[in-house]
Amino acid sequence: MTQAPFFSTMMHAPMTVAMIARHGMRIHSRSRVITCRPGGDEVATFAEVYQGAARLAQALGRLGVGVGDRVATLCWNHRWHLEAYLAVPSMGAVLHTLNLRLHPEQLAYVIRHAEDRVLIVDAELLSLLAPVAEALAGVEHLVVVGGDGEVPALGAATHRYEALLAGEQPVFPEVALAETWGAAMCYTTGTTGHPKGVVYSHKTIFVHTLASMARDTFGIGQDDRILLLPPMFHANAWGLPYTAWFAGADLILPGPHLKATDIRGLVERYRPTFTAMVPTLINDLLALHRESPLDLSSLRVIVSGGSAVAPALIERVRDTWGVPVLQGWGMTETSPLCALSVPPRDATPEEEIHWRSLAGRPVPGMQVRIADEADLPLPEDGRTVGQLQLRGPWVTGGYYRHEGESPLTADGWLRTGDLGTIDERGYVRIVDRLKDVIKSGGEWISSVDLEAALLRLPGVAEAAVIAVPDPRWEERPLAVVRLEDPSATPDIPAWREALRKQVASFWVPEYWAVVDDLPKTSVGKVDKKALRAMRDSGRLPIAEVRNRRDADAPARR
Amino acid sequence: MTQAPFFSTMMHAPMTVAMIARHGMRIHSRSRVITCRPGGDEVATFAEVYQGAARLAQALGRLGVGVGDRVATLCWNHRWHLEAYLAVPSMGAVLHTLNLRLHPEQLAYVIRHAEDRVLIVDAELLSLLAPVAEALAGVEHLVVVGGDGEVPALGAATHRYEALLAGEQPVFPEVALAETWGAAMCYTTGTTGHPKGVVYSHKTIFVHTLASMARDTFGIGQDDRILLLPPMFHANAWGLPYTAWFAGADLILPGPHLKATDIRGLVERYRPTFTAMVPTLINDLLALHRESPLDLSSLRVIVSGGSAVAPALIERVRDTWGVPVLQGWGMTETSPLCALSVPPRDATPEEEIHWRSLAGRPVPGMQVRIADEADLPLPEDGRTVGQLQLRGPWVTGGYYRHEGESPLTADGWLRTGDLGTIDERGYVRIVDRLKDVIKSGGEWISSVDLEAALLRLPGVAEAAVIAVPDPRWEERPLAVVRLEDPSATPDIPAWREALRKQVASFWVPEYWAVVDDLPKTSVGKVDKKALRAMRDSGRLPIAEVRNRRDADAPARR
Repeated sequence: MTQAPFFSTMMHAPMTVAMIARHGMRIHSRSRVITCRPGGDEVATFAEVYQGAARLAQALGRLGVGVGDRVATLCWNHRWHLEAYLAVPSMGAVLHTLNLRLHPEQLAYVIRHAEDRVLIVDAELLSLLAPVAEALAGVEHLVVVGGDGEVPALGAATHRYEALLAGEQPVFPEVALAETWGAAMCYTTGTTGHPKGVVYSHKTIFVHTLASMARDTFGIGQDDRILLLPPMFHANAWGLPYTAWFAGADLILPGPHLKATDIRGLVERYRPTFTAMVPTLINDLLALHRESPLDLSSLRVIVSGGSAVAPALIERVRDTWGVPVLQGWGMTETSPLCALSVPPRDATPEEEIHWRSLAGRPVPGMQVRIADEADLPLPEDGRTVGQLQLRGPWVTGGYYRHEGESPLTADGWLRTGDLGTIDERGYVRIVDRLKDVIKSGGEWISSVDLEAALLRLPGVAEAAVIAVPDPRWEERPLAVVRLEDPSATPDIPAWREALRKQVASFWVPEYWAVVDDLPKTSVGKVDKKALRAMRDSGRLPIAEVRNRRDADAPARR
Repeated sequence: MTQAPFFSTMMHAPMTVAMIARHGMRIHSRSRVITCRPGGDEVATFAEVYQGAARLAQALGRLGVGVGDRVATLCWNHRWHLEAYLAVPSMGAVLHTLNLRLHPEQLAYVIRHAEDRVLIVDAELLSLLAPVAEALAGVEHLVVVGGDGEVPALGAATHRYEALLAGEQPVFPEVALAETWGAAMCYTTGTTGHPKGVVYSHKTIFVHTLASMARDTFGIGQDDRILLLPPMFHANAWGLPYTAWFAGADLILPGPHLKATDIRGLVERYRPTFTAMVPTLINDLLALHRESPLDLSSLRVIVSGGSAVAPALIERVRDTWGVPVLQGWGMTETSPLCALSVPPRDATPEEEIHWRSLAGRPVPGMQVRIADEADLPLPEDGRTVGQLQLRGPWVTGGYYRHEGESPLTADGWLRTGDLGTIDERGYVRIVDRLKDVIKSGGEWISSVDLEAALLRLPGVAEAAVIAVPDPRWEERPLAVVRLEDPSATPDIPAWREALRKQVASFWVPEYWAVVDDLPKTSVGKVDKKALRAMRDSGRLPIAEVRNRRDADAPARR
């Protein structure tokens, strides 16, 4: 027989961000973008935002921005950031979202590394640029959003956003885009070495956006009102700006107002149906609710991710507000949606928390496997632990201008650096970051699982587990906890007894540190690198607590 | 600045039917495929169907089927047809679904034109092959599903489906697929000339499937149970076999049992949540309900398409069962999902029927415009009528081995042959098929709209409008109607009075024919070509009815 490919008759209509932009404007022109501002919220329709985006594209074109040029943003979540999300890729340029929580030297590095030509920056964030003025040598234009104070001289030509757009026609310039072109780029906030750049193409953003609209993923529809708390400078805020726009959902953008009390105001004013936040913020909202009741009943779901969500927290949210927590597993390298903890359809109410506390099952289009150190696939039996590896249409295959080792296996799967299991129904459980797992007496202790157990102890508000060197067992876990009531005195022996009922006895820590605050990374995760530095420099108040019976053999099961 | 494309870092993970197949098996292994059979329904899990598909792929490989080979099916909707949907594209071959309602000469034409090498056929449909035995010369293998009678000698080697698969391993052969390869093909049932072949690629099926899962399109999820009435041999049954599989929804497959009474049984046994059917069948179900109550309350929606759904029918379904009708506009050339009549989010209950009776708004990814005879875009004001033209990732750009005129405009849009309007919110209204519209006194009369008005008349069960030549007005409409009660005597003058309240007076027909039956095409639409032939050969009982006041000027408004 023929044994030769047989090609389709389908047209080559590229899948682009411009199509997303036009669809939202055309079909959902009356949907709203609400930006929280101290003087009163700014409410714009999709039609108005699209016009703003078109004017921005015209203005950038006038400044000389063309196909392939990088336009950076250093902005909070607001309407004008969204205009850049739509305008920059639609004109064939590349949107580079700068993480405003990067250390100045990292910020300087990524601006230089991406060769950003234009930088759109919030007036209140200009101060972040002063220390990196040298890195701005290649930036030709600085566009300042908001504010009316003096703009410090930073080398580049400086423009006010509103003034720059004022004379422009609200019509997008016609550009014939290829779907393989870069549309947006993000740098990972790696804990070692320089940040690494991931460049999304038009096609991968388009397909990721469609996947996020599926009923059993985020299921975003025109009736949604999305409170967008994940920063638009981090992994495209779960891709939600594009998903909301394509689906016609309202976007509620908090600007820099991200404290629990700010969120209370936004929830009361706009009754959002959907939001996403890191577990820390969920904890803050629960604390706020204890002070004065907070009504979150308008939410159909709270997506949480960034770090593992403890079952206790999922239970508390359900019991407090009746809202399900949907855990998302993803990363800058995966656009970022990879897996979601949607329970299977035959899950019983009793099993609900179990399923929701997993990293979840791959969303349609993503493939996940576990592999050993030679990258050979391991059994998916729910018990075997291996490194999680990924493949799919919106997964990166490498990093921009990166000379280090490829993140791909020889057979084309992305190594995630996460250790986990996959069960027979395809659900992923993250055991630990490869670099955070604790090796004790030849066995693994999952810092993630131990942290979840610690959070179930009475009085514990936050917990992190890192390793301490141990002459006998190689490593032992150190539990670092923050108390709900800072003035309380913890009964660690009682906690240890309680832990024994939850985890293998060799997991129960002898080393404890009670702290007032846990260091956080730029995206709100507990910063274990900082914690380890504190440990090494003696800045953690470590107590050693042993019960009589484990005097002999702490690490034996 | 650079003005050069900047490429993404994303991996090249092709989007394929094999990924859909694997995802459904892996994540939704317990979802069910139910096939209606006289002796008792056959229930299989996705895991079992996937194993069947893998065995089929192994067996076809053993018969010599390789990359690019066409494997045809001549089957009703059932488990084994679904196995072919999964197996054939996943092995790099091309699934060619034969429309069992084609005329024998068309069937012979498409088998030869596609160069089908293997033909999978239902035992009860073997009789369709006898008249086309000559066309089977290129078919090397005939695989017969079901039945146990003699198989007539048709030239090809003959196999029984079960026996062919019996010894095979339930493991898919590894094939490195490219997403641009053909995966499936369908021939349009064009009313003129030979049928024309559309070849879908892996990528277009994949993206179309994702789009069909979006909450505001079909919104298929794991909790759905889909009663699959649209034939799998026609435009991939709205793509629902793939959508259900990717989402983990149960599929209820009726086999050849498509009468209203069969559907009653399936609905009672399986309580489907989702179905799709042509308007004619909705009418049949309403008639059945009048005889003996039918409970369709398990349905969250009835998708209807194929021909325009009259507002009266949408109202009747809502009033009878409380189920919304979602009108779908699509065609073989568009995979087929193009637009859906989802009301906008701010629609009032009073407006609901208005929005649902439109062809709808383009689904995310589809672009629709109206153009004049020179293919120049026309205003989208809800009034201007033009030919509807399409662009999008799952729209065909031509036909397989077709030497006629390209269906694309010079700027790359597909001409649909439908006349319509687009309103300022992007909603499409189909005015008529270009070839069905009636030109009367220099004005257009929409056969579609006039048929909808006729269906509101008391006692009218079905209606079709075609043109009759008129010496004075060029063309006048002829109303062909079937009565609910065949023994009744219609009061046409009263109907004409009633019509005057619904449509412009020059639309009101003077020519009427009351018939016992309307001719239908292979996909259940009224066959206007056959009606015109009946008109021309004097086989329609045409009465001319004029009220006194229009004796002078029937076509003046």
